[in-house]
Amino acid sequence: MAKNKEILFVKTPEGMPTEDCFQLADAPMLEPSDGQVLVQTHFLSIDPYMRRAMGGARSYTGLKPGGTMIGRGAGVVLESRHPDFQPGDAVQSEFGWREHVVLDGEGLRKLAPDLKPLSLSVGILGQSAATAWVGLHHIANIKAEDTVVVSAAAGAVGSAVGQIARIAGCRVVGIAGGPDKCRHVVDDLGFDACVNYKAGTLEADLAKVLPNGMDIYFDNVGGRTLEAVLDLANDYARVPICGQISQYNAKEPAGLRNVRIILDKSVMMQGFRVGTRLDLRDHALDQLLGWWRDGKLNYRETVSEGFETAPRALINMLSGGNFGKQVVKVV
Amino acid sequence: MAKNKEILFVKTPEGMPTEDCFQLADAPMLEPSDGQVLVQTHFLSIDPYMRRAMGGARSYTGLKPGGTMIGRGAGVVLESRHPDFQPGDAVQSEFGWREHVVLDGEGLRKLAPDLKPLSLSVGILGQSAATAWVGLHHIANIKAEDTVVVSAAAGAVGSAVGQIARIAGCRVVGIAGGPDKCRHVVDDLGFDACVNYKAGTLEADLAKVLPNGMDIYFDNVGGRTLEAVLDLANDYARVPICGQISQYNAKEPAGLRNVRIILDKSVMMQGFRVGTRLDLRDHALDQLLGWWRDGKLNYRETVSEGFETAPRALINMLSGGNFGKQVVKVV
Repeated sequence: MAKNKEILFVKTPEGMPTEDCFQLADAPMLEPSDGQVLVQTHFLSIDPYMRRAMGGARSYTGLKPGGTMIGRGAGVVLESRHPDFQPGDAVQSEFGWREHVVLDGEGLRKLAPDLKPLSLSVGILGQSAATAWVGLHHIANIKAEDTVVVSAAAGAVGSAVGQIARIAGCRVVGIAGGPDKCRHVVDDLGFDACVNYKAGTLEADLAKVLPNGMDIYFDNVGGRTLEAVLDLANDYARVPICGQISQYNAKEPAGLRNVRIILDKSVMMQGFRVGTRLDLRDHALDQLLGWWRDGKLNYRETVSEGFETAPRALINMLSGGNFGKQVVKVV
Repeated sequence: MAKNKEILFVKTPEGMPTEDCFQLADAPMLEPSDGQVLVQTHFLSIDPYMRRAMGGARSYTGLKPGGTMIGRGAGVVLESRHPDFQPGDAVQSEFGWREHVVLDGEGLRKLAPDLKPLSLSVGILGQSAATAWVGLHHIANIKAEDTVVVSAAAGAVGSAVGQIARIAGCRVVGIAGGPDKCRHVVDDLGFDACVNYKAGTLEADLAKVLPNGMDIYFDNVGGRTLEAVLDLANDYARVPICGQISQYNAKEPAGLRNVRIILDKSVMMQGFRVGTRLDLRDHALDQLLGWWRDGKLNYRETVSEGFETAPRALINMLSGGNFGKQVVKVV
């Protein structure tokens, strides 16, 4: 019988996860039953929400150690007993960290034949970009006259936020860690400006590039950055809260000291998860694919080679070591 | 010529306002021109937003010292050169702190003949209750199955929030300062429970009366109370931010340390001002008047006698000395 491998989540981290929070394990190679497919994983998607799911002192709920690590993947059908899928079909879904996975059809998305590399289906043409789309179009009700600010601008979600906002006709300002990422965001992704938060002069730098304030702040990081951007809110600004990556590994939360701005400027702030709005997600993915075919979307990936590198890839991404979407190439 | 009096705002306070921030002054008795009315002030409305308007270290904008103090009032038309108003009509509008005021028709609301005392038109049948209505029905999209929490529950806005939510079929929990206010809120206003935040065990007491969490938190106070209630948010909770009274006189803002709950629970938080939604306000006032005629609304007032007591009445209200709506009876 062919061999299969999976990676287990075995220890809840207190701060930044370490490699011993995970364990590579042999697993049985399952046969699909009626209505199921057997899929070979080509790429694993590595995302900030994984840290939240892993729990620890700062998280209200978490994965219980002992099971297979969660995560989305893209791959190819090897064997099908489901009428809608054929061997050779490229698909994308929640796989877990597995080299091979048996899935029923629910939530399994067949990919367009021209969607290549398959890793795009978890990034700029997948969940990351759909999250950006839902935050801008559904939560923030984006309009062409808005000035849009996004943090973690060189990340998978942030780079999609900026490009979707640019397509909507907005002025777009990114916040990213370091001059290389800022250059990428402006030169390759078409942002109007980008502020390097590591320069240590965030408030002054933001004020300089936002002389007319901000209307939408797409927040991926929380903490002091959220506070600094909120200070520049215009009346009726909208703040979709998508991530709080600066806080996931923090021992003490950074308190938001300017809540009064929410009142003074009639700001709307809303947390959201794309996973609860599958109707919107599918619409977003169709629109993104169209833009991509029209050459309107750029992207970059940080690819970690080999299934067993997934824990290191996650730690790298949580440390800001990625440029664009962080993925693991399995085969 | 008859005498008129006004109260000027002459000094920006740094913390709690003091009486020397104001100055009683003689003023000319004006004649109405075409399209105007002369109104005698019967009641002045005393409200928390006045402290925000007065500025100081914590406010992004403020009244400039030197002008007449702002504020809504209720009174009776003495002389009219406006086709829609007759001498003897009871009216309500922005008067400023003036014993007599000349107004054009814009924003001047004629009161129903059975609306008595006139002070109700600035409280449970006026701006305070309209604010509650807009926060619940427009911002928070209230539904019968919601559990609603409101702070400053014995105040003018809070007591309206609780009663409007009760009429909508909700379970209602108040937060107020002291056992007398809590008793009033439960016994007279029909709240299901009330927590005395001065007892010093807010988190535990809230957990006890909210075993199923909260769906709407109508925030009038901000600070540690906002944090404690947010910790009990259910998925998709809504938090209309109406006031931050605990923060207006604070030297250092209390940071909101649990922003992550906004993400974890997909919470929507929104600041709002009823003054920007006059269409909704008028609809709300009509509905409130109907409920009042049907005997569904209870109220209490703290009445300060005499025009010159307005500064003291404001300081009293900001110190939590009021029970229900704080007003000044001018005549």
